Amino acid sequence: VSTVGLDGDDTLWRNEERFQEAQAFVRDLVASHAPDDFQQRLLATEGRNLRFFGYGVKGFTLSMIETVIEVTDGGIPARQIQRLIELGKEMLEAPVELLPGAGEAVARLAASPLRLLLVTKGDLFDQEERIARSGLADLFDAVEIVSEKDEATYRRVLGRHQVEPPEFLMAGNSVRSDVLPVLAVGGVAALIPYPLLWGLEAAEAPAENGRFLRLQSLAELPDLLGV
Amino acid sequence: VSTVGLDGDDTLWRNEERFQEAQAFVRDLVASHAPDDFQQRLLATEGRNLRFFGYGVKGFTLSMIETVIEVTDGGIPARQIQRLIELGKEMLEAPVELLPGAGEAVARLAASPLRLLLVTKGDLFDQEERIARSGLADLFDAVEIVSEKDEATYRRVLGRHQVEPPEFLMAGNSVRSDVLPVLAVGGVAALIPYPLLWGLEAAEAPAENGRFLRLQSLAELPDLLGV
Repeated sequence: VSTVGLDGDDTLWRNEERFQEAQAFVRDLVASHAPDDFQQRLLATEGRNLRFFGYGVKGFTLSMIETVIEVTDGGIPARQIQRLIELGKEMLEAPVELLPGAGEAVARLAASPLRLLLVTKGDLFDQEERIARSGLADLFDAVEIVSEKDEATYRRVLGRHQVEPPEFLMAGNSVRSDVLPVLAVGGVAALIPYPLLWGLEAAEAPAENGRFLRLQSLAELPDLLGV
Repeated sequence: VSTVGLDGDDTLWRNEERFQEAQAFVRDLVASHAPDDFQQRLLATEGRNLRFFGYGVKGFTLSMIETVIEVTDGGIPARQIQRLIELGKEMLEAPVELLPGAGEAVARLAASPLRLLLVTKGDLFDQEERIARSGLADLFDAVEIVSEKDEATYRRVLGRHQVEPPEFLMAGNSVRSDVLPVLAVGGVAALIPYPLLWGLEAAEAPAENGRFLRLQSLAELPDLLGV
């Protein structure tokens, strides 16, 4: 392995909490109308809207508004919709909280001869802000903010940095985004599960595979790579 | 000049039309409430929200909803807000229409020894879609989608491609985004005005300057560079 890619959201810093807290707020807001399957309805809207909005807080906010209008049959007052836009802004301004051990692991990898990339998915503007606030930006050799983590994306990133797939290790919390496409292009993938996972990221972990590892924490990665 | 950067929106393809058409639709939607200065109110909301949303259609849609709630004093029915979300989706799905002569100019530049970069600002996902639909993606040596076009951004782009500023020419329709920061970092800038300009892009053109050119059309650029 010559090059390590690290995921950002829920690998280096907390992310899914801000979405789940927002959802809890919205369920309360529309409590009298909210069907039991409110969360499933929201997830369905998000899934339908992915092809328009991609990932990130702005698309989530629009999907939240759309779902609330739908479940209240258009009965929600506009002022409450304004409250949802404010909620989106609060999510975008939320402080970035590093996961335990993440800062030290990144520092050790950065001090090693390995090339270190941050490969993160979402809104460009939001992700740039979060990376800047994380305080880790300068430790990476390059930052790649991508709109989707699929095979084509990893091929493009590896091509740009002239890395052969077997020399590339990607570490992250999502089987769908950080593991499966990396294995498919011939790289090595380290899954570091996080207790919370967005419904649309759910995917089954691959079978045993010499290029697939499971870690308890990012803190294990420097030792594993001997740096 | 060894490297040419081209702007996308309203330099290669039409863009501002979709925003102005959306605004006209919204003014009609809230006609009975809309104050005479509706457009200024919307622009003010967009300006205030830039630090949360950055550029692009999703942020515009959220700002449109916010402004409509504000000018109707919360009186707009939720169903009409849903209509605004649909409008945002229509903007995101709108076909990409190249400006006259743009395709041929890009093809000539691409066939020359010059390195050709697309440097465009906005939502990552939306811009990627538009670039793909433009049919021009393969003609560029690299595509840089950025969240802001300021001096730091141009320095980063030039650094990544190892170009000295005096060897870099940027062509685009915005004085604020394509000209002033490029001149400030020591590059050459070619302004190609477009009849429509978003209020927040307005800026005064620089005084006479040996590194600042004005073109009527992108079609003039290959001749100017002798390719």
